[in-house]
Amino acid sequence: MASSSFLHSTHPTSSSSAAADASTLLLRYTPDFCAFAPLRPTRQLTRARWAPTPRVPAPEQPQDADPCCADDASSLSAPTASPGAVLRVGIVGFGNFGQFIAAGIQRQGHAVLATSRSDYSDYCARHGIRFFATVEALCEARPDVLLLCSSILSTEAVVRTIPFHKLHPDTVVADVLSVKQFPRNLLLQILPPGFGIVCTHPMFGPESGKNGWNGLPFVYDKVRVAQDGDQAAKCEQFLSMFEREGCRMVEMSCAEHDRYAAGSQFITHTIGRILAQLDLKSTPINTKGYETLLKLSENTVSDSFDLYYGLFMYNVNATEQMDNLEMAFEKVKQMLYGRLHDLLRKQIVERVPIPGAPSVMSNEAQINAAGIPSSLL
Amino acid sequence: MASSSFLHSTHPTSSSSAAADASTLLLRYTPDFCAFAPLRPTRQLTRARWAPTPRVPAPEQPQDADPCCADDASSLSAPTASPGAVLRVGIVGFGNFGQFIAAGIQRQGHAVLATSRSDYSDYCARHGIRFFATVEALCEARPDVLLLCSSILSTEAVVRTIPFHKLHPDTVVADVLSVKQFPRNLLLQILPPGFGIVCTHPMFGPESGKNGWNGLPFVYDKVRVAQDGDQAAKCEQFLSMFEREGCRMVEMSCAEHDRYAAGSQFITHTIGRILAQLDLKSTPINTKGYETLLKLSENTVSDSFDLYYGLFMYNVNATEQMDNLEMAFEKVKQMLYGRLHDLLRKQIVERVPIPGAPSVMSNEAQINAAGIPSSLL
Repeated sequence: MASSSFLHSTHPTSSSSAAADASTLLLRYTPDFCAFAPLRPTRQLTRARWAPTPRVPAPEQPQDADPCCADDASSLSAPTASPGAVLRVGIVGFGNFGQFIAAGIQRQGHAVLATSRSDYSDYCARHGIRFFATVEALCEARPDVLLLCSSILSTEAVVRTIPFHKLHPDTVVADVLSVKQFPRNLLLQILPPGFGIVCTHPMFGPESGKNGWNGLPFVYDKVRVAQDGDQAAKCEQFLSMFEREGCRMVEMSCAEHDRYAAGSQFITHTIGRILAQLDLKSTPINTKGYETLLKLSENTVSDSFDLYYGLFMYNVNATEQMDNLEMAFEKVKQMLYGRLHDLLRKQIVERVPIPGAPSVMSNEAQINAAGIPSSLL
Repeated sequence: MASSSFLHSTHPTSSSSAAADASTLLLRYTPDFCAFAPLRPTRQLTRARWAPTPRVPAPEQPQDADPCCADDASSLSAPTASPGAVLRVGIVGFGNFGQFIAAGIQRQGHAVLATSRSDYSDYCARHGIRFFATVEALCEARPDVLLLCSSILSTEAVVRTIPFHKLHPDTVVADVLSVKQFPRNLLLQILPPGFGIVCTHPMFGPESGKNGWNGLPFVYDKVRVAQDGDQAAKCEQFLSMFEREGCRMVEMSCAEHDRYAAGSQFITHTIGRILAQLDLKSTPINTKGYETLLKLSENTVSDSFDLYYGLFMYNVNATEQMDNLEMAFEKVKQMLYGRLHDLLRKQIVERVPIPGAPSVMSNEAQINAAGIPSSLL
């Protein structure tokens, strides 16, 4: 893996003061963390910045180090970040997605520690993962990386209960939310200054990633990484797990991500939700295009409404995209009904004679006649 | 192929008297042929009625008979319809789709005659097809089957210029429009009583059928077929071309087709048109779902707007589907914005205290907190 690909200038900012300026009514409902953060100007993407990373085959077997030994809660020794070393990743929020990410981390031979609202101790016992009943207990095990896999809606509450003082002062905190400005600004405001911050979005899940992660986009923004000490190396090692799984590594600012995601992922979820509302049914005469809509509708509702609501509520660009979609729909209707009215006017205002057919459309038909000059009609 | 699969009761009706009853304003713009025809009640589909037909491999070479000899304009002898015989199919409207269908007819070893508004004599010369400059000249060649491949909007004018008296009195007339009640009623009203009528919709085109027609749905309705004489055999032979190409043969009334197509094909085109209006762009972080929308948008605009307009204007069920789509969109917006308002009311009416976070969302977050009881907040 090319370490250089992770070089990145950090850009810590705090949104809290800006947040206090909230004045308009609408803005009051938008999470402050998301709405008022000073944004880093969008960088023009070059092919090089998001070209697929050459696939590095994942090892068939976990690497030499043994996760179970490495995952020793009693060991409080400072974590090593030498390339070969096992990284100890503490996952907070161990639902479907947390488990899905944990499997990739383990495939790369690293250790997973986990905590969640629900009790996943049986699942963890079966998968060589150490489960902690509380986030406090997990922090006492002092993982190298704390990975937030909570839902968008619960993340703020989750972060506010983490006893950071129990963690190493240079711990790297990462998240995997489908929105990025919100967790970036939340972590910049709440985390102790020594903590590293890496915001990521694996743009796939248990369904689209069930046959491996090769070629699937993984967005990351090294929001705050100290270049001295182990932090930079730990951060690099964490990101390399996804690179080695074959992900297409896309380094992008959180603001950039949210702009792109609102115009693509949020629109896709919205179309899927609309189709689900239509309650589409398979017919004896499905076209290939219709089959893709049926599949999209099915995939969308397999996600929770909370996720869709999170994509809307926690991305400052979502409302604009919703408006664009509405305008596009209006435009299509206007193109159809407008043409209808033109035909009517021809008939009732201009008194255009309609030879032969009883239908106003036969007049239209003349204009479009294939192979027959209108004079013959 | 199972001849029995083509047994079908005919149901001629005329819509002209009903058409005269047009009274409401909206109905005046709807083509009479389409709007007021008495519909055959929808039959419940059974698996058997539209189960895929076992693939009969198309012959590598055209069958024994030679289309060029068979396609002899000077021969006015009554056409034979014995199973092995070459059928002479006259295509009216020889654009992209007419040429696409002609290729399949030729693969099955039958002869194609063609006429069109534009001059396709060079193309036809290269493909062993006899081209006629006018529909009169084509009719004088007395094809066994007259296949209408004109656009939806031009079909009425095209049909009204066909000199039926120059054709065999038992000629089979077929169409391939994406709407079916309209051509059904048009042909029932205009054709001489001896003519056979077979309305079909190959639910694929040059793009979706570029790798062969195997498994692709072909809808047909034997609207009027005389059981005595050659007509039934000619009709069967015509349909067998598509069956032998591997199409999934779906026998369905024209009314049934239009109901299904409005809820599937028209909805698909509408979503595609809306996405095209949005002018979606590929991003560095496309999800798989978004990729399918990009593809749908691209495919939709490769079709003419006239086709989309025809699907809307010439299908009596399209307006209802447009309304359903609008209601579905409204419902999704209401689910998003409604939840937003609930949160606001909590804050400004019920004065719900919001510990910690400056954001109203942290209150929402409490409810959704992963692993953290609200009491801790």
